[in-house]
Amino acid sequence: MINKLITKIRQTGAPIVVGLDPMMKFIPRQIQEAAYAQYGETLEGAAEAIWQYNKGIVDAIHDLIPAVKPQIAMYEQFGIPGIIAFKKTVDYCREKGLVVIGDVKRGDIGSTSEAYAVGHLGKVQVGEKSYYGFDEDFVTVNPYLGSDGVKPFIKVCQEEKKGIFVLVKTSNPSSGELQDRLSDGKPIYELVGEQVAAWGQECMGDGYSYVGAVVGATYPEQGRILRKVMPRTFILVPGYGAQGGKGADLAHFFNEDGLGAIINSSRGIIAAYQQEKYARYGAANYAEASRAAVLDMREDIAGALAARA
Amino acid sequence: MINKLITKIRQTGAPIVVGLDPMMKFIPRQIQEAAYAQYGETLEGAAEAIWQYNKGIVDAIHDLIPAVKPQIAMYEQFGIPGIIAFKKTVDYCREKGLVVIGDVKRGDIGSTSEAYAVGHLGKVQVGEKSYYGFDEDFVTVNPYLGSDGVKPFIKVCQEEKKGIFVLVKTSNPSSGELQDRLSDGKPIYELVGEQVAAWGQECMGDGYSYVGAVVGATYPEQGRILRKVMPRTFILVPGYGAQGGKGADLAHFFNEDGLGAIINSSRGIIAAYQQEKYARYGAANYAEASRAAVLDMREDIAGALAARA
Repeated sequence: MINKLITKIRQTGAPIVVGLDPMMKFIPRQIQEAAYAQYGETLEGAAEAIWQYNKGIVDAIHDLIPAVKPQIAMYEQFGIPGIIAFKKTVDYCREKGLVVIGDVKRGDIGSTSEAYAVGHLGKVQVGEKSYYGFDEDFVTVNPYLGSDGVKPFIKVCQEEKKGIFVLVKTSNPSSGELQDRLSDGKPIYELVGEQVAAWGQECMGDGYSYVGAVVGATYPEQGRILRKVMPRTFILVPGYGAQGGKGADLAHFFNEDGLGAIINSSRGIIAAYQQEKYARYGAANYAEASRAAVLDMREDIAGALAARA
Repeated sequence: MINKLITKIRQTGAPIVVGLDPMMKFIPRQIQEAAYAQYGETLEGAAEAIWQYNKGIVDAIHDLIPAVKPQIAMYEQFGIPGIIAFKKTVDYCREKGLVVIGDVKRGDIGSTSEAYAVGHLGKVQVGEKSYYGFDEDFVTVNPYLGSDGVKPFIKVCQEEKKGIFVLVKTSNPSSGELQDRLSDGKPIYELVGEQVAAWGQECMGDGYSYVGAVVGATYPEQGRILRKVMPRTFILVPGYGAQGGKGADLAHFFNEDGLGAIINSSRGIIAAYQQEKYARYGAANYAEASRAAVLDMREDIAGALAARA
């Protein structure tokens, strides 16, 4: 799957993943009203609104991007109907040929991580038969429990040719409280990065590993260090746009081959029509605004990569 | 909710939480066959088997224990039907008066942790109305992202009078890889424990905080230290029984008031009929075997607490 991701990045010229993290305040009124007219102001109504909103965006941008990253929390908050909308979104994006990164940040003790890995990436056994549960292509994984919380995911990745991105240095303001602490003279994020690189050697694609890392755009200096610590690791970079990361901050997340990183933007793309810059599209054309924002983001990143040469 | 948990611990004399972590290999054949007869060997069939199995156990033991802890991964692996079985289990246990600890180990950047907190503990807004998504009483939370990943949960706990247990020192063999690393002369688990104690001061119940901690029974020495670092923190202690923790290891997790800890057992209770000790019950009476195992566990813990006096 890492090979497919890289192929699609090359085809589109866009090392971009769009975060499908719908919040009700992003969803145009006409979509909410249509959903509530059908299902009432219920969890089912909210889930329908999310699904229609996502579908509009995916239809408008799927040819421009290699991947999407639905954040499951934004669906899980609407209970079971929300989870159903998550699954519909995953399936629809895969039908459109997109690589789907489930941003689930799971991680637990061994037998439990195995259940998460099976549920999100693999197949579960039921009597004589087996079924995919959620069937994303990649998921994000939390490393706090150590190797035996991560290895069950790696095992399923090897069987299914799928992948993971392990949290190393997250984009949020307080990520340093734990991740920047020094131990044996190195920050925790660097020690976790070394582990990610070691785990990654167990499942290499053509040039990069199936085991990737998450490093926030908001921490470019740490990104520069981690790029060297994990040379064959693909880095998923959240925090561009709304969280404050800029194109120029991103160059050091990439290797000299122009690969090795994929930059996430969520509300900067999916709620573009709410920004002054794209306000001319209006809520009725929210998906076209998202398309324009993807094109601008592609240009911003290409410019940043060209400027470092 | 911490007050309710403590009241129920006192009433039952059992600082015990039963982990409702169903694996297909635990579920008696007659339950699986009945479920498959109705739904086929499908995800729906597996979910029905899980639900009937759980219901049998809860009916047999609910008067003996204060709380249950369903591990959502064991449900999530069966996709949406699995999640529906999780929700049915949560609702049924609450109807029976049990405190429900959702073992979800969520944790993310601020806005995303807020969505998880709303979905699992709070109410989500849909138009003019609001709804509970999963509506557990407590959830477990992963601290890797720092304060801004945890505080949204605390905010919802304050509003809803619910609680969380933050992972501090987990029960699995490799938990030390990250959690035991020394920083400023202290292990990470102790530094996280100090944070948990500080967060906990923002939401105190009568004697203990709504913000609890997870510390594995398999690490009794660390439990002794953490008991002192977090004097008003309730500790959820997994790892008893199948993972190797014994009653005698548990005494130091408790305060002198006999409170401050709740010990989890999962397969040791729910799959008791598969142990030689309870084999006489047979698969047909699996729930009675679980009841006997709860009574033995209660005695083991009471003995350990008495022995330290």
